[in-house]
Formats: sequence, C-alpha cells, structure tokens
Amino acid sequence: MGSSIAVALVVSEYPVIAIAPISSDLQHAPEHIQNQLRHCQELNLLNAPIGSYFANINLTENYEELKKCSVVIECVTEEEDIKSTVYTEIEQRVTDSTTIGTNTSAIPISQLQKHLKYPKRFLGIHWAEPAYATRFLEITCGKQTEMDTAKRIFQIAHDWNKEPTLLRKDIRGFITNRLMYAVYREGLALHEKGIAGLEELDKAFRYDVGSWITLMGIFQRMDYRGIDACATALKNLFPLLSNCQEVPRIMKDMVEIRAKGIHNLEGLYSYTEEEGHRWDKAFSQFNKDIYHLADAYSNNSN
Amino acid sequence: MGSSIAVALVVSEYPVIAIAPISSDLQHAPEHIQNQLRHCQELNLLNAPIGSYFANINLTENYEELKKCSVVIECVTEEEDIKSTVYTEIEQRVTDSTTIGTNTSAIPISQLQKHLKYPKRFLGIHWAEPAYATRFLEITCGKQTEMDTAKRIFQIAHDWNKEPTLLRKDIRGFITNRLMYAVYREGLALHEKGIAGLEELDKAFRYDVGSWITLMGIFQRMDYRGIDACATALKNLFPLLSNCQEVPRIMKDMVEIRAKGIHNLEGLYSYTEEEGHRWDKAFSQFNKDIYHLADAYSNNSN
Repeated sequence: MGSSIAVALVVSEYPVIAIAPISSDLQHAPEHIQNQLRHCQELNLLNAPIGSYFANINLTENYEELKKCSVVIECVTEEEDIKSTVYTEIEQRVTDSTTIGTNTSAIPISQLQKHLKYPKRFLGIHWAEPAYATRFLEITCGKQTEMDTAKRIFQIAHDWNKEPTLLRKDIRGFITNRLMYAVYREGLALHEKGIAGLEELDKAFRYDVGSWITLMGIFQRMDYRGIDACATALKNLFPLLSNCQEVPRIMKDMVEIRAKGIHNLEGLYSYTEEEGHRWDKAFSQFNKDIYHLADAYSNNSN
Repeated sequence: MGSSIAVALVVSEYPVIAIAPISSDLQHAPEHIQNQLRHCQELNLLNAPIGSYFANINLTENYEELKKCSVVIECVTEEEDIKSTVYTEIEQRVTDSTTIGTNTSAIPISQLQKHLKYPKRFLGIHWAEPAYATRFLEITCGKQTEMDTAKRIFQIAHDWNKEPTLLRKDIRGFITNRLMYAVYREGLALHEKGIAGLEELDKAFRYDVGSWITLMGIFQRMDYRGIDACATALKNLFPLLSNCQEVPRIMKDMVEIRAKGIHNLEGLYSYTEEEGHRWDKAFSQFNKDIYHLADAYSNNSN
C-alpha cells in the first residue's frame, strides 16, 4: 500500500521520501510505482509526463532522508512490535513537531501512541486502496493527539483530492469498519440461520446499495427517500437484528483452511486461477470508471 | 412506483394491464409513463419507438381486465386494509393459479397472505426505484407460498433484466433492509455517542463502499481483500457493535417535526428548495450512469 500512497501524494504535487527498508521492496518499487503512475495517467490525474512525478519520489532505504519531511506516514505490516521499531527510527530523525501518521486499520491509535516519544503529533491517516484513485481518508485522533495537528492534516487532505473524515475519539474499527462489520454481522447471521445464501446477500446489497451509494451517503439517502418511513422501519427492525458477538462458524472454517480468497483461490466462493486474475483486472478497470463517475457527482452534495 | 414497474415489464417485452383505480392517478399516468419510457430510451433499453412500448400498457380502472394476466403485482400504499381489499378485487377476477405478488417492503408476506383465498400463489416481489433501471429484485416466500411459484418468478425475473434474490423464509425487512438497518443502527449509535457526525458517517461509507459495491458483493469483497484479516476484525469488532433496540433520539425528533427529507426540505440535513430539485435531477442522471456501469461489469461475477 505504501507505493499507492506515495503516488497519491506526488500526483497532488507533494514530493515524497519513500523509505523501503526491505531491499526486495526497494528493488520492485520503481516498476510498481511506474505502473501506478500509468494508471493515474489513464485516470486523467496527471498534468505532466509520468517521469516528472516519478522524479518527485525519492526511494531510499535510508531513514536519514526523513529529516526534511513535515509529515511522515507509516504503512508497515499490522504488527505492533514492528510499528514500534519503525516509530523509533522515525523519531530519531525528524523534528519534535513533525506529524507522524499511521495507515493502520487494525490497531487502536491510542495503543500505538504509547510507542512514541512525542505522542501528541501522532494520529491515524487511513487510506483506501488504490490511494490515488479513492476519495476515502479517515483521520483518527488517539487519546494524546493534539487536535490542531489532526485539523491540519484534515485540511491538507483536501489537497490530496480526498473527502476526509475526522474522528475525534479513537474507536476500534474507526467509522467504515464499524459500519461494514455491522453489515457483516447481520449478513452472517442470516446465512447461519439458513435464511439467505452468501450469493443472495451479495446480490441484494450490491444491486440495491450499489445503485445509489456512489452518489449519496446513508443519511442523505434517508432524506432522499423521506425519513418517516425509515423511522417506522427502524422501530420494527432494530429489535430483530443480530447481536451476535461470536465469530460465525463459516469464518472459523475459513481461518482453519487458511483461505485467502482470490489470493489463494480459496474463500467464501471458489475460484479458478483465471477467475482470480479476472477479478483483479476487473477491479482495476472498474476503479477508473467509478472514480470518474464519483468525480462527476462530487459537487452535488458537498 | 406502479408506473415504474409497468415500464420495467413492457421494456422486457411483457405486456401490462395497469390498474389505476384512483382517477387522478389514471389521469396523470400516461404522461408519467411516457417520461419514464423516454428515460429508458436514454438508457438504450429500447429497441423500438416509445409508442410501441406505450401501446403495450393497457391503463384502466377496470379490474375485469386482469382476467388475462398470469402474474399480478400489487403495489398500493403500505396499509394492510387497503391491500386486503385489493387482493379481494384481484382474486375475484383471476384464475386460482394466477400468481399474485406484492411490492411491500414493510408488511410481512405471511401476514398479507392471510387475506388471500388461495395464499399459496402469493409472494413478495420487491423492486427498487426506478424499477426499469435497477437490477435489484427481492422475491420472498410467505409461510404458505408454493416454492414452485417462487422459483418460476425467480426465473422470469431474469427476463425482466433483474439479478433476483429468493428468500425462502419470510423475515421482517427481507434481506437488504436487514443489512441496511444494521448499518443505520451502528451509524446512529456512533452519532448518539458523539463519536461521529452524520456528515462524517455519510462520507466514510460513501467513499469507501461506493468505490467497490457496484462491482462486487460484500462477501466477494471479503474474498477480494483476503478473508483472514476480516476474520480477525470480526472477532475484535462484533462485541463492540451497537445492539440498540430503541429508536434513536434524532429519529424521534424527525418524526416529531414531520420531516420528510428533500420532500419537505426538512430532514437530517437542511435543504433549500433549489437543493431539493438538484438532488432529484442528480439522482435521475446518476441512475443512468450507474446503470450502464453496473451493466458493463455484470458478467464479471455472475
């Protein structure tokens, strides 16, 4: 994900020092970044040749280079120990007021903050993949984050072509994960009770929500439909929704067989190798299309 | 909604007898239907001039005309008494084996079934608006519905250009409403606790989910991302999600002030008259665009 964030930043005219401490990463990064820049070109995000953006990414193994940075974004693997080591490396080089963000989606910000010498300049800066072609950005304060720092990143995020959200309290799962896992909880409960198959659940959500969510948020949707009917539906449905706290059987099974979905062709659905590739290709193409579509309607409600 | 369903059916080469027992409805219906057919033309859904489709809709006040129909779809207001009267009118005319469907999204199918003389041919056929430009169709059995009838409608629904779901058990809220209200429950809880504003929640869901849901379902998404991380997130998040059974304060307030969202310009957000119109226009245009986009990717995963 690091390269995708680096590309998002240079495309927004923010020069990047990209630290790749693992040498195999460093070796493959240039090609990977150039592919992503080509993707940006197809998205009409570039005003200049690819090379001029590429030149603004300084790929290096050397943490010393971070000295010049006013914002550092960590996006290493979701392991607290590793992140902690990286924060030490960063803090040894940067000034005390340099903002340090993490792309974590799994570990609470306040928890990670404990590993920092100056925790008040630390916060969550959570991107969606591909970072250069999505509007999503979740900015999350930990207990010790200075609000001014968060607000400044929130402002800058608009330069990065994002529609950021700012979460003042550090809750587990931030916003989208909370909302999405509420859907998964209900869906998996309906599946477990034998009421609907996964395919059924997929179709229903995809063909209903997929016909409007790119245009409007869930509460704007309520206003659009007329919220009196929604209030009645809430009253009827809330008491019936799943309150399950356990990992459902099917998910335990998936962990047991080490399913990785399209990545090892074993998952909730089964895939041939060709289908796995087709998904990747389709998502890459779809991403361009939905980006343009979302863009065309971005002024409607903001 | 009746006219939009009628248009969806004739566009799929299914001739329609459209009963409009309220004379003001009957008066305005032709213009309304012609506008919708023009919309279909812009969507490239028509192979012939608008007039030839219009000619396939027999608009009438006379229930007698239903005699010829093999499927009758009721889509009157969500009041059980009125629906019951309509079912009596229908059953007096059609053969005992004619399928009768309801577009209800609020009343359980098994409940409505009690008002039918021959309940086994009765089921839910729930459309999304506009019926001719969405793929969504929820087919729901009541306790007494004959499975063969449901399966037949499920088959026919593909001719109607739908991606239908078949719900064998009649659960309150069917599939999509259950999933959506799970999102609303969590979102409203985060709002009530002061963790995120409605605008924040709207942005987060719109810019995350809106960047993929038109391409893939929620469980396909798990497979796409690699489901091991999802299993861990489930385990962490399920115990933290809202189990609220009450209507949240903000929704009670909305009911009290008789908010109808963009329809009376009072809602969760506030709107000027111009903004209300702009939403309607934007949705109508967006609908065309997302329909084409969804269409282009419909083969990817089905």
